[in-house]
Amino acid sequence: MSSSDRIIFIGAGGLGLTAAFNLARKNPDLKIIVFSRETTVAYSQCGMPFVLDGKIPGFDNLILYNPEVFKDLGLDVRTGTGIASIDTDRKSVTTDKGEEVHYDKLVIGTGTVPFVPPIPGTGLRGVHRLINLDDGRSILKSISSSKNAVIIGGGPIGLETAPAFLDRGINLTIIERMPQLLPSSLDPDMAVLLEEYLISKGARVMTGKGVSSINGAERVESVTVDGETIPADMVLLSAGVRPNVELARKAGFEIGPAGGIVVDPYFRVKMNNLILDDVFAAGDCAEVISAITNKPMLCAVGSVANRQASYLTDQLLGKGAPYGPVICPTVCVVGDLHIGSVGLNSRACESMGIKPISFKATGNTRARYYPGGKKINIKLISDGERIVGGQVIGEEGVHGRINTLSLGIKKGITPIELADMETCYAPPVSPMIDPMTYAAEMLALRCARKK
Amino acid sequence: MSSSDRIIFIGAGGLGLTAAFNLARKNPDLKIIVFSRETTVAYSQCGMPFVLDGKIPGFDNLILYNPEVFKDLGLDVRTGTGIASIDTDRKSVTTDKGEEVHYDKLVIGTGTVPFVPPIPGTGLRGVHRLINLDDGRSILKSISSSKNAVIIGGGPIGLETAPAFLDRGINLTIIERMPQLLPSSLDPDMAVLLEEYLISKGARVMTGKGVSSINGAERVESVTVDGETIPADMVLLSAGVRPNVELARKAGFEIGPAGGIVVDPYFRVKMNNLILDDVFAAGDCAEVISAITNKPMLCAVGSVANRQASYLTDQLLGKGAPYGPVICPTVCVVGDLHIGSVGLNSRACESMGIKPISFKATGNTRARYYPGGKKINIKLISDGERIVGGQVIGEEGVHGRINTLSLGIKKGITPIELADMETCYAPPVSPMIDPMTYAAEMLALRCARKK
Ligand SMILES: Cc1cc2nc3c(=O)[nH]c(=O)nc-3n(C[C@H](O)[C@H](O)[C@H](O)COP(=O)(O)OP(=O)(O)OC[C@H]3O[C@@H](n4cnc5c(N)ncnc54)[C@H](O)[C@@H]3O)c2cc1C
Ligand SMILES: Cc1cc2nc3c(=O)[nH]c(=O)nc-3n(C[C@H](O)[C@H](O)[C@H](O)COP(=O)(O)OP(=O)(O)OC[C@H]3O[C@@H](n4cnc5c(N)ncnc54)[C@H](O)[C@@H]3O)c2cc1C
Repeated sequence: MSSSDRIIFIGAGGLGLTAAFNLARKNPDLKIIVFSRETTVAYSQCGMPFVLDGKIPGFDNLILYNPEVFKDLGLDVRTGTGIASIDTDRKSVTTDKGEEVHYDKLVIGTGTVPFVPPIPGTGLRGVHRLINLDDGRSILKSISSSKNAVIIGGGPIGLETAPAFLDRGINLTIIERMPQLLPSSLDPDMAVLLEEYLISKGARVMTGKGVSSINGAERVESVTVDGETIPADMVLLSAGVRPNVELARKAGFEIGPAGGIVVDPYFRVKMNNLILDDVFAAGDCAEVISAITNKPMLCAVGSVANRQASYLTDQLLGKGAPYGPVICPTVCVVGDLHIGSVGLNSRACESMGIKPISFKATGNTRARYYPGGKKINIKLISDGERIVGGQVIGEEGVHGRINTLSLGIKKGITPIELADMETCYAPPVSPMIDPMTYAAEMLALRCARKK
Repeated sequence: MSSSDRIIFIGAGGLGLTAAFNLARKNPDLKIIVFSRETTVAYSQCGMPFVLDGKIPGFDNLILYNPEVFKDLGLDVRTGTGIASIDTDRKSVTTDKGEEVHYDKLVIGTGTVPFVPPIPGTGLRGVHRLINLDDGRSILKSISSSKNAVIIGGGPIGLETAPAFLDRGINLTIIERMPQLLPSSLDPDMAVLLEEYLISKGARVMTGKGVSSINGAERVESVTVDGETIPADMVLLSAGVRPNVELARKAGFEIGPAGGIVVDPYFRVKMNNLILDDVFAAGDCAEVISAITNKPMLCAVGSVANRQASYLTDQLLGKGAPYGPVICPTVCVVGDLHIGSVGLNSRACESMGIKPISFKATGNTRARYYPGGKKINIKLISDGERIVGGQVIGEEGVHGRINTLSLGIKKGITPIELADMETCYAPPVSPMIDPMTYAAEMLALRCARKK
């Protein structure tokens, strides 16, 4: 790419701003413009639930760098400016203020939009979502005077925020339409552990129940679910997110079966069945390919967006390597509980035509005589040949095991290979036999029996 | 194996007792006799340093089960009875009390002996080693009145015990002949982190200095090192362990280049170049094959002994699978610091004719704005193609990363594959970019440059 080229980013999130930064550092001569609808950029979304629950002192702690840094790098970051349309013939974008700006290369990193259930009352005051800093600040403001709160949807963002209510003694009801919490990552028998934890902290959890309306004159006053009216001075919508693709769809770019923008391994979008070589999309708004099924899927996590930003940077510098299929390991922290998942859960297996064989084990995170050890629950899923998924829930040791599984699944390991994995041992940090290798051993037996 | 066969175990440690237990459970008809020199068996050696430093209330907590359990299982465990010799012609062992006992199958699980440096004074009162419960109890007794202690040798057992001295305000000097602590697992630049930690806790650490004598009339009074006399009312020998092979050597079994009993993948010993099919050895006393170099090595860790016990059980039941080469991941806990290592360190590479290429990274265990995060230091070593070793030091997150490396190295991953590994992310448990994948990325660049 010639250094007089102009690169435009739509969205200054985990994908866009990171890639723009990388690019500016590697080639200071590039002209880079980053458009963001938001007024503040360069902060960590993912930290917001922990500001709300008081673990992190304030939202300012989440600011990763101030705008000075952009200037020093020669980055033109235009905050508070949304892009309203893309014109690929004119190679330009038009802002919501009507300004048309030419691009040589365009990167779409518009992230997600929260799913808003189609029920009355979602527009009432006191009904929140938690996507950007303004959302976070407004929740923090309301929460201090809240007595009764409702979280609609058992997705990770709402659940990570639940302790913010519970720790303040606010009556909290969590309502999820599916019969379990975290339906997109956990199996029901694992989700029940999270449910029990939340109940033990004082929450009321209603699963398998859909909210029919949010009620109130101007402000929310209650929520109706299953014929019952639950008082609520605050509602947090947490029914999952969808790729933010409206702009791309309007511009004519292909949207895939999973609902994200279709891209090739070099993040190039498709239009009329052709790959464009000057428009890219990545991060939460684009589809990825599953390393397990080789089919398109969504993986809206920051760690993937960040890694894609590195690949995309190289791509924009003309030395791109293909971005490969993903495993999508995730971990979410609800109070003291860490909930990890990787690969396919049982439901995902079935929807892919895979008959899942699984084993669930419970173990300890330390030698059983060593004080402070925690229970850890591990469920492994196989397609009969390889490990295709794992779920881990506990108060410590979750992150490391999910990462081990992430690597293992990527390398196509079998239950027997995982059972044979050597684990290190010292009483304060691990049991002699890791519960994960034990689960794998039992899973291998089950798989053998089903053959 | 016919169920009237008699199986004899020499040694009731992590290998012997575990295998005997497994066997008795799986086939209650077997006649199993376990001989142990020690008076107490079925306790966790590995927990002893943490009883000494007060984390675990007492040694009784380390007892895993009481002798009743043996009886219930029909296990004949003869404590306080050493085996003095083995006669393969007569298929018998003779105890130190002169009793000859016939075997059909014999398992040698004699563990290790501590290396005692060839200097005067190692037999004085107040000079301890920490191998069995009696050692532990006698250290605990002395420590309460100790003012000046010396640990001779920078091996893991002594270092895990160092906080027991430091937390009590005892003057502690640690002396290691090699220029660094933990020479068999760490590189010098990683060992220095452990050294700094111990110094910050009040220890004096002398590396590259050999002790010339332990002095005293009946009890130890001082230690002479490098011309200096250091007062000492207590000495702990921690100069590493050696396979306990004297009995096997006397019986004519082959001892290998690494100093352990030579066994085939079914744990069968060798004699006059022939494999015996009724004598087995495993655990710390036997050699294993390195999964990296395919050469014999020692791996004296409990997790390996335990896994071998499972394989050996199947073997003795006549349905044995070959026990494969090992990676030998370890973790050792010194106060708040966790020190992990896996595969080859740089010195081991060089002694194997491998030119090590390495990269060391420092990162955080949590998002940098999340309170309580710890520094984590990661060194990765490659032979130019694959990852062959890793060392991780920090106050959390060490165990998980060592296990991930253990699996990765076993699967032969390259630095690029490790760099591309997807890691899960949540601010309270991990940074967005894992320092290990960052280290791998940098290592991949180094490897590419050296080509
Ligand atoms: C509360 C919360 C907690 C989270 N916790 C975790 C976690 O613990 N771990 C994890 O891995 N992930 C987590 N995530 C997800 C993670 O933040 C995202 O995966 C990541 O930010 C995706 O980066 P992105 O750039 O694709 O999208 P985003 O970071 O969402 O950025 C998209 C940006 O584009 C802007 N935009 C959209 N349309 C336009 C337009 N037309 N014009 C201009 N700008 C536009 C948006 O305003 C937004 O700023 C969390 C998300 C939230 C909201
Ligand atoms: C203080 C300490 C801390 C440790 N910490 C860890 C750790 O954190 N993690 C880890 O993985 N490993 C650790 N280890 C190592 C672990 O304990 C050993 O790897 C494991 O016990 C090996 O099992 P084994 O059966 O081969 O040997 P051992 O458990 O040592 O058992 C051998 C037994 O044989 C007996 N014996 C020897 N000769 C004879 C004979 N002639 N007749 C009868 N009996 C005999 C001995 O008395 C001994 O009881 C630690 C070891 C010690 C001493």
